[in-house]
Amino acid sequence: MPIRTPNDILICFEEEKAKQFIEKVWGLNPTFICVIGNTETAKIPRISAAGKYPELTDYTPAADVELLFYGRCKCIKGVPVTPEGIPTPALITMSAVRVADIPVFVVNAGVKVKPHIPFIEVEGSPGNDIRTGRAVKDPEKIFQRSVLLGESFAKISDYLVIGESIPGGTTTALGVLLAMGIDAEGKVSSSMPNNPHDLKLRVVKEGLASTNVDPERLKKDPLVAASAVGDPMMVAFAGLIVGAAKRIPVVMAGGTQMAAVLAIVKGKNPNVLENVVIGTTRWIIDDNTSDLTYLVSQIARVPVLAANLNFSYSKYDGLQMYEKGAVKEGVGAGGATIASILKSKGNITCKTILSDIEKNYERLLSLKH
Amino acid sequence: MPIRTPNDILICFEEEKAKQFIEKVWGLNPTFICVIGNTETAKIPRISAAGKYPELTDYTPAADVELLFYGRCKCIKGVPVTPEGIPTPALITMSAVRVADIPVFVVNAGVKVKPHIPFIEVEGSPGNDIRTGRAVKDPEKIFQRSVLLGESFAKISDYLVIGESIPGGTTTALGVLLAMGIDAEGKVSSSMPNNPHDLKLRVVKEGLASTNVDPERLKKDPLVAASAVGDPMMVAFAGLIVGAAKRIPVVMAGGTQMAAVLAIVKGKNPNVLENVVIGTTRWIIDDNTSDLTYLVSQIARVPVLAANLNFSYSKYDGLQMYEKGAVKEGVGAGGATIASILKSKGNITCKTILSDIEKNYERLLSLKH
Repeated sequence: MPIRTPNDILICFEEEKAKQFIEKVWGLNPTFICVIGNTETAKIPRISAAGKYPELTDYTPAADVELLFYGRCKCIKGVPVTPEGIPTPALITMSAVRVADIPVFVVNAGVKVKPHIPFIEVEGSPGNDIRTGRAVKDPEKIFQRSVLLGESFAKISDYLVIGESIPGGTTTALGVLLAMGIDAEGKVSSSMPNNPHDLKLRVVKEGLASTNVDPERLKKDPLVAASAVGDPMMVAFAGLIVGAAKRIPVVMAGGTQMAAVLAIVKGKNPNVLENVVIGTTRWIIDDNTSDLTYLVSQIARVPVLAANLNFSYSKYDGLQMYEKGAVKEGVGAGGATIASILKSKGNITCKTILSDIEKNYERLLSLKH
Repeated sequence: MPIRTPNDILICFEEEKAKQFIEKVWGLNPTFICVIGNTETAKIPRISAAGKYPELTDYTPAADVELLFYGRCKCIKGVPVTPEGIPTPALITMSAVRVADIPVFVVNAGVKVKPHIPFIEVEGSPGNDIRTGRAVKDPEKIFQRSVLLGESFAKISDYLVIGESIPGGTTTALGVLLAMGIDAEGKVSSSMPNNPHDLKLRVVKEGLASTNVDPERLKKDPLVAASAVGDPMMVAFAGLIVGAAKRIPVVMAGGTQMAAVLAIVKGKNPNVLENVVIGTTRWIIDDNTSDLTYLVSQIARVPVLAANLNFSYSKYDGLQMYEKGAVKEGVGAGGATIASILKSKGNITCKTILSDIEKNYERLLSLKH
């Protein structure tokens, strides 16, 4: 009996393959992995919303994963918010993994502030400002260690759902996409309703001008591209996929940054793409300022699924703002939501998750005061 | 149909429970976790064989787990050997996990030299010489993070096999056992044929005299005891068990050090002991200079199983020396061997594993020159 795609999962690209994926993992047990990192690029004024002040972006990834482990942050008070006070998407991820009892592991690809949790070290360093053209140190080490890690997780998981937290990540994604010759101008998303495309493009162009690597090499070697104008998160993320997707399905949980990761994976081992899908949120799909499926379609025909989350009628203004284009995605929120629906065979819905999110958000707001 | 205990697994304590464990995990998929750490105690002359020169013990844990990941060491040339040139038990573990395709994860409880692999960080520090009476910094942090980690692994593993690599570990084990009021004098094992009991006891007594903690508190609070005269490995190891054994069986893979870990677990959460067995080697059971089952019997009635490894007729002198009382156990060699037999439903035997060990040893000897 074929499985009917739950209403709460939208299929946005490669419908047949997406349905096959849903049938394959229906009721199975995923492992959620969050890859964290920092890039100095996030501190360029007006480029990122992940942190009220640019310097606070150093704390965002650590705070996000602490929320997943403890239900509250340890390295900061309250939770990460945008300058307008809109809460981190880690709130969504936290609810999704908790209601479905999905195990969480964290990979440190290179953070400035370490989270107060057990995390996996691949000994990357925080990324430099991509305007230097020397964004990531020793990408080969980060990549190879992450491959080994992906291989290990593939032996004990039915499938993986991999998310990320790195402020400034859509700009570094634009960097790698343009370096690799993909038409990405004006296509990457933003955590702010007003997507600063011009600023991002200027930053990337400055980075590409600074690097002394031959443009043809940037196009052909994805780790060289990431090393020049990318970030450490995407290198570790790609390594995990290359290691794991040889053996099990992998959900890339994220927005337009996933296109950059996909391009790296394709450059390193295109065979594993057969086992890969992208899981995101409806807010990314509905975003008029970016185009995830167009980006993906240029790289590989991997399915794109979206969690049909809707916060229009939430009790909380901070959550309602997600419907106005704030935040949209991050910390694997969309993919984790999809995984919790699939693990529960549809018993968990976006509504279940929203109600848990509201409970947690209420508790966290009360802690803050 | 009851499962017959394979001949290659000896049951040495609590036979009925041991058989129940074997039935429960027969054919299931274990995850192997190696907890690594250092203690300055290892550098006390003549106390440890894990490293040709005392300073080399800094490299032993890292080299051991590199061997598991790559089939060769990266941070040193060759493999860790005793002063007489007898190779590390990681050779046994490597063969056991490879022939049975058992996934390997490494937890850094506090090493001086980091391994060139992906490893899990609980942010412990290397242990001080226990003669200071202040052996482990912040044991509560190491313990709690390891509990979280154990909980996560329990969600994705049928059962865990946990091993360790920490030179000097039997002396710190003696420290914690005596601090907790267990009759352990002359009972802990050594990686050397001549077990330096007097030296170990002198070192522990000096540590106990240096600490200004009330002896009754040492007896009652195992993390206080470990903090005074233990090592970071045993704290992380105990945390993993407390986190995981609530949900799944755990094999404590090691020799007499496991008694110290067991005492810590008992002090923190005795309920989980129902789900715990010790897996070691025949060399530990046959050792006249130590008494694992006597130590265990004073703490908890957990089964002790031993891999019936026999290197008497090995082609290599270095391996034959295991029959003369050298090395005996370490890096979870015994427990990993047992797990590979159980996972394969007895298709893998100690003989299969020895033949793989010899192949690897030959290759490694040729690399060295």
